[in-house]
Amino acid sequence: MSEFRKDPIVARWVIIAKERGKRPTDFVIEEEKTTGGFCPLCEGNEHTTPPEVLSYGRPGYAPNMPGWKLRVVPNKFPALVVEGNLNKRGEGMFDEMNGIGAHEVIIETPRHGEVMATMTSEQISLIFQAYRDRMADLARDMRFRYIIIFKNFGRAAGASLEHSHSQLIALPIVPYLIQEEIDSAHRYFTYKDRCVFCDIIHQEQSQGVRVVCENAEFITICPFAPRAPFEMWVLPKRHKSDYVALDDQGRRLLSDLFLETMRRLDKALPRVPYNFMLHTAPIRTPDLEHYHWHIEILPKLTMVAGFEWGTGFYINPTPPEEAASFLREIRLDR
Amino acid sequence: MSEFRKDPIVARWVIIAKERGKRPTDFVIEEEKTTGGFCPLCEGNEHTTPPEVLSYGRPGYAPNMPGWKLRVVPNKFPALVVEGNLNKRGEGMFDEMNGIGAHEVIIETPRHGEVMATMTSEQISLIFQAYRDRMADLARDMRFRYIIIFKNFGRAAGASLEHSHSQLIALPIVPYLIQEEIDSAHRYFTYKDRCVFCDIIHQEQSQGVRVVCENAEFITICPFAPRAPFEMWVLPKRHKSDYVALDDQGRRLLSDLFLETMRRLDKALPRVPYNFMLHTAPIRTPDLEHYHWHIEILPKLTMVAGFEWGTGFYINPTPPEEAASFLREIRLDR
Repeated sequence: MSEFRKDPIVARWVIIAKERGKRPTDFVIEEEKTTGGFCPLCEGNEHTTPPEVLSYGRPGYAPNMPGWKLRVVPNKFPALVVEGNLNKRGEGMFDEMNGIGAHEVIIETPRHGEVMATMTSEQISLIFQAYRDRMADLARDMRFRYIIIFKNFGRAAGASLEHSHSQLIALPIVPYLIQEEIDSAHRYFTYKDRCVFCDIIHQEQSQGVRVVCENAEFITICPFAPRAPFEMWVLPKRHKSDYVALDDQGRRLLSDLFLETMRRLDKALPRVPYNFMLHTAPIRTPDLEHYHWHIEILPKLTMVAGFEWGTGFYINPTPPEEAASFLREIRLDR
Repeated sequence: MSEFRKDPIVARWVIIAKERGKRPTDFVIEEEKTTGGFCPLCEGNEHTTPPEVLSYGRPGYAPNMPGWKLRVVPNKFPALVVEGNLNKRGEGMFDEMNGIGAHEVIIETPRHGEVMATMTSEQISLIFQAYRDRMADLARDMRFRYIIIFKNFGRAAGASLEHSHSQLIALPIVPYLIQEEIDSAHRYFTYKDRCVFCDIIHQEQSQGVRVVCENAEFITICPFAPRAPFEMWVLPKRHKSDYVALDDQGRRLLSDLFLETMRRLDKALPRVPYNFMLHTAPIRTPDLEHYHWHIEILPKLTMVAGFEWGTGFYINPTPPEEAASFLREIRLDR
């Protein structure tokens, strides 16, 4: 079983995936996987993945059979396992616990080669619905404290499969970058009695220079201090800390804007590798006045090297005002 | 001029390198640079770099001419510039200041193709001396608060030049990962009245399982909660917060152990890309009881993807006990 281990200095946890235990000779440079090979995520290959935990399909379809529109399956090579207890323990001054968690793959489409920018808004909406449904289900497991949803697109962004998918990891710990974000937002709220994200949205709307697109309920901006060129955040305009509380109408509007955002990105930088992460409140926390869920999209155009590793400081060659202006002015075919 | 910008939520600063201002079309995939092309860092090509700010040479050599053993030059494409003032300012709720700083390149050897693992201990000692001398010099500039020294080796670790070099960036801000490390160590000290790094060294020496190598003054360990496979930390056994205070005898012992560490790494994983970062106290701080300078070495074997970006959580397939055992048992030819 893998282990969670905590750095004794900073509150950084790592997962030591023991059974994957790699000796130096195991680190061979992985080849880029291109189209043409066998894809376990394609329609018709359902038997090559673990059985699905959720799927949406055309009328009359059966689970684990062709006919689905989206399916969620446990990761075949999970970093964490669902069965067992945490067994928190110390080893002298060091802290560790068992690698308990859930690690799932959201197969976003049955069609290989389709990417978010080429999907319909209805398909994107199914993806966001799957995020919600899996989070709501896993939140009932009292061992878990946080569920992170993320997507790696393209080899340079860490994707090992080409077929469009995202991932979910349920954790017994609130990750420290999320905790720090929540704590910082709380300090701001204590001082100002306002949500820092609501204030950002307000300033971005009045300045306009970093807005990429918006609709009645959502807005996409290039943040003021972006870590990466063309970094974008998608935020709900109305204050809400918990993504799971998003209703059907909200999800439709989110899907519309998210699709437009991905289409703009794909037209500016065709098939650019990217990561996105859904930041939401820890599970089972009542609605927080000081926190605001959102999605952070990080295109992979620059290298993270020693300076960034050592400092948490990023060097970004593209001002967000230029990126936003470029993305905003792209003409999309309807 | 570039700008420092602060994220309004977390205390994360970024450098927006405006004059590099990249539009999407500027992001072409960079080709791996291999031997054979022109190298501006090689002996004989001194005129292709900015004039040196420091060099050590054979007796009778002249600055900016062949005959040097090591030279330090300003980065030709600096992220920050030395001239000017910070002009700290607000833009509504956002904070920014001018991109003032120093960005230098330490050319570690005149010989192209030489790597740390193939150098002599005397050459490594010159490198550590250059770090010290440049830090001591730049510390006199009252605009600077922190000097980070780091090395990117290999394309996958962010190196754009093959010739062995490291980099120095002097900053008007203490980077937040460093500040967090210092603050966390301070909390530990307040509670225990001991340095957390001294405690780690003590526990590692008594357990032995994560020790890679050591000598009278220094120790190399695989840390208990490593972010990356074969991550190593090199620490002075005697408590010291400030690297600059290291004396000549200490530097010789550091160089011996550092060379042994790099040779073990290179034998385990030949020419593996890596980053290292020197973590030391902010400049002009009196000796700190709670902080302990050290070097963190991160081989680049796994991808940092959406999960790590979103959470600050790392998945590592190699337990540090296995990595340390493997590195420790390597037989080095004398």
